[in-house]
Amino acid sequence: MENQLTGNVLVAQSGGPTSVINASLAGVITESLNHDCIEEIYGGLNGIEGILKEQLIDLAEESQQTVRGLRYTPSSALGTCRYKLKSEQDFTRFIDVCKAHNIRFFFYIGGNDSQDTANKIAQHAAAQDYEMRVIGIPKTIDNDLTMTDHCPGYGSVVKYLCATIRELALDHEAMGNHDLVSIVEVMGRDAGWIAAGTSIAKRRNQVDDPPHIILLPEVAFNPEYFLAQVQECLKKNKYCLVVVSEGICDANGNLVAAGEAQDSFGHSQLGGVGEYLQRLVQKSLPGIKARSCKPGHAERAAAHCSSLADSNEAYMAGQAAVKAAVEGNSGVMVALVRGDTDKYSCETTLVDLASVANGVKHFPENWIGEDKISVNYQFNKYILPLLQGEVAVPYENGMPAYVRLDKNEVPKKLS
Amino acid sequence: MENQLTGNVLVAQSGGPTSVINASLAGVITESLNHDCIEEIYGGLNGIEGILKEQLIDLAEESQQTVRGLRYTPSSALGTCRYKLKSEQDFTRFIDVCKAHNIRFFFYIGGNDSQDTANKIAQHAAAQDYEMRVIGIPKTIDNDLTMTDHCPGYGSVVKYLCATIRELALDHEAMGNHDLVSIVEVMGRDAGWIAAGTSIAKRRNQVDDPPHIILLPEVAFNPEYFLAQVQECLKKNKYCLVVVSEGICDANGNLVAAGEAQDSFGHSQLGGVGEYLQRLVQKSLPGIKARSCKPGHAERAAAHCSSLADSNEAYMAGQAAVKAAVEGNSGVMVALVRGDTDKYSCETTLVDLASVANGVKHFPENWIGEDKISVNYQFNKYILPLLQGEVAVPYENGMPAYVRLDKNEVPKKLS
Repeated sequence: MENQLTGNVLVAQSGGPTSVINASLAGVITESLNHDCIEEIYGGLNGIEGILKEQLIDLAEESQQTVRGLRYTPSSALGTCRYKLKSEQDFTRFIDVCKAHNIRFFFYIGGNDSQDTANKIAQHAAAQDYEMRVIGIPKTIDNDLTMTDHCPGYGSVVKYLCATIRELALDHEAMGNHDLVSIVEVMGRDAGWIAAGTSIAKRRNQVDDPPHIILLPEVAFNPEYFLAQVQECLKKNKYCLVVVSEGICDANGNLVAAGEAQDSFGHSQLGGVGEYLQRLVQKSLPGIKARSCKPGHAERAAAHCSSLADSNEAYMAGQAAVKAAVEGNSGVMVALVRGDTDKYSCETTLVDLASVANGVKHFPENWIGEDKISVNYQFNKYILPLLQGEVAVPYENGMPAYVRLDKNEVPKKLS
Repeated sequence: MENQLTGNVLVAQSGGPTSVINASLAGVITESLNHDCIEEIYGGLNGIEGILKEQLIDLAEESQQTVRGLRYTPSSALGTCRYKLKSEQDFTRFIDVCKAHNIRFFFYIGGNDSQDTANKIAQHAAAQDYEMRVIGIPKTIDNDLTMTDHCPGYGSVVKYLCATIRELALDHEAMGNHDLVSIVEVMGRDAGWIAAGTSIAKRRNQVDDPPHIILLPEVAFNPEYFLAQVQECLKKNKYCLVVVSEGICDANGNLVAAGEAQDSFGHSQLGGVGEYLQRLVQKSLPGIKARSCKPGHAERAAAHCSSLADSNEAYMAGQAAVKAAVEGNSGVMVALVRGDTDKYSCETTLVDLASVANGVKHFPENWIGEDKISVNYQFNKYILPLLQGEVAVPYENGMPAYVRLDKNEVPKKLS
């Protein structure tokens, strides 16, 4: 039941990379090969920023090996950007590039800012009577997109952090003597999904297992309460493992550790809250040792420990986007829907881009424990399936052998 | 050719844990079962600190599954300590515990401080005419023990960091626009082996691959030179990836980022040099973004990405220690010897504990590049074999399923 429109595909990636965003790209490429109405498969370099410069590559020229390799290779193989289409001129130029290359199917893999961009592109194409189907593909480690059960990229970052926390736990268990506070700073600007996710690292029926304290951006940070909870924990346990979201704020809504810089979307550049808490403990609790670690950007790229469920769903989302476009949809994002039986299943559906754009799905208040430093079993049920299975990464010379695209450029047609 | 002495084994772990120190423990346990002169196999909890309190467990009671699991479980399963035997009283007590439990073979798995401790225990036993064979088993991620080609634990930390750097590289490559400085703070108090090791993450024949700048404790840190090198790198590359050893010092030998606390051996507690460099770049190079990450203690426990070569050698070192003791040796440490052919091979030998104790093997000056921020091909040849192969870690519920000892206590015999 293909709704007849013939032309070329353009796919691009946007925002912060993840361990599985390339799996979505692989899904788009392989599914595109299944449809006669799709002629060429182009990739836009560095998101819309490169597309404005007409930097397109021919993805059909990439080897099968490389496309397969995208399923375990982290980061955005096409390059990415944090650029926002600002002016009418930008949008006109974007549509001009699409027209010049007969782009009839545009896929944008990204987070909420990127879905907003895709939405506006769809609107501008329509306003210009240029028939082009625009489909968003969700991606974000932050898991904060609305209208989807979860986001590709999230399960993998949590899986990696949980492995890390279990390992740190063994380390601290061996060293600790009721005098060690270990702080792990994790990403999560606005929503605490990542920090909360690490709670699943607790072994079943081991309430005293780490992480002992989880600090979410959804809960106002109170230093006195925090220090009291640390001391309480050290009475029972050899060490106290704290997971802190980079975006925690005080009662007035001010970031606990705000950097000075802002990115091009006006977001504060965060960092340093782990070392801040480390100093707070050292200063306030004499005789207690404090340590901090910060996987930083490594956590969103740690494909050597990514979730197979996550990778497969990212791939499926890419495939679903192509199918949706071919069937005539536009102005929509692929969303993930969880089955309602006890056995986990996941399917895709389509939601309006407008309803996703710029929304933020906060961590649900009723999943936060009464003590405000833990999460409850409802969340555990939500997160556990997203971590299942291990992506097999080939190693060469003792290191992961990730792939890079050949990036054969498509000749420019515009000035 | 067993030199007749019959009695019990006591094995303990000391100092900072590693990803493979339990593999050495597994080697001691399994090899001990091969010798009739060994009756009981005891583990000392928390190193010498627990042994002084007569906290011994019966390792023969642990299941075969658990002992096998030690080969992929990070950290010190017996617990560890940083305690130093200080007084004559301490040593007398230690020998009394050994006598009470007929310990005739004592194995201490640890770094240079621990080899010093083992050496003194051997001397005190001899002074008291108590026949007990004392063998050191090398362990340290720092790779700074003298008299051994390399140390179990080192290859795994480098393998994990190299995977991380390759992943960060892909992330930055996608994001970078000649304006990103990414700093990775790694462990290494006195010697730059770990920081240097990450150089192997460069792909072959890709001189511009990261890490672009490696800061070793062996080279005095000069902020002006560092910033100039960063700028030079950003001219050629989309980003500049810096690996910095926690222990770098200025020209006067002062730690660039010294904490206030010291551990019980008088070592400064380090940390924060990554964020220091991040702020230095932000302050000094307007328009340049700086990020830092710090795997921290997670790097020495990251068994989900440990080296099979390293794990196997750690196991072999444990086995070799038992064989050496049974054959009549004492006051020695098992050392690793590299074969002299092109194909890598590794055997064990024995070296005097006295010659290892408290020595530090610095990173060789002639392996440091002329620019002082790189290492040369001789080092690459040294490090590459140590990273080979991947330890298969079983996963359960999406997370590594590490083992814990049952720890059945041996009844106390002393007051």
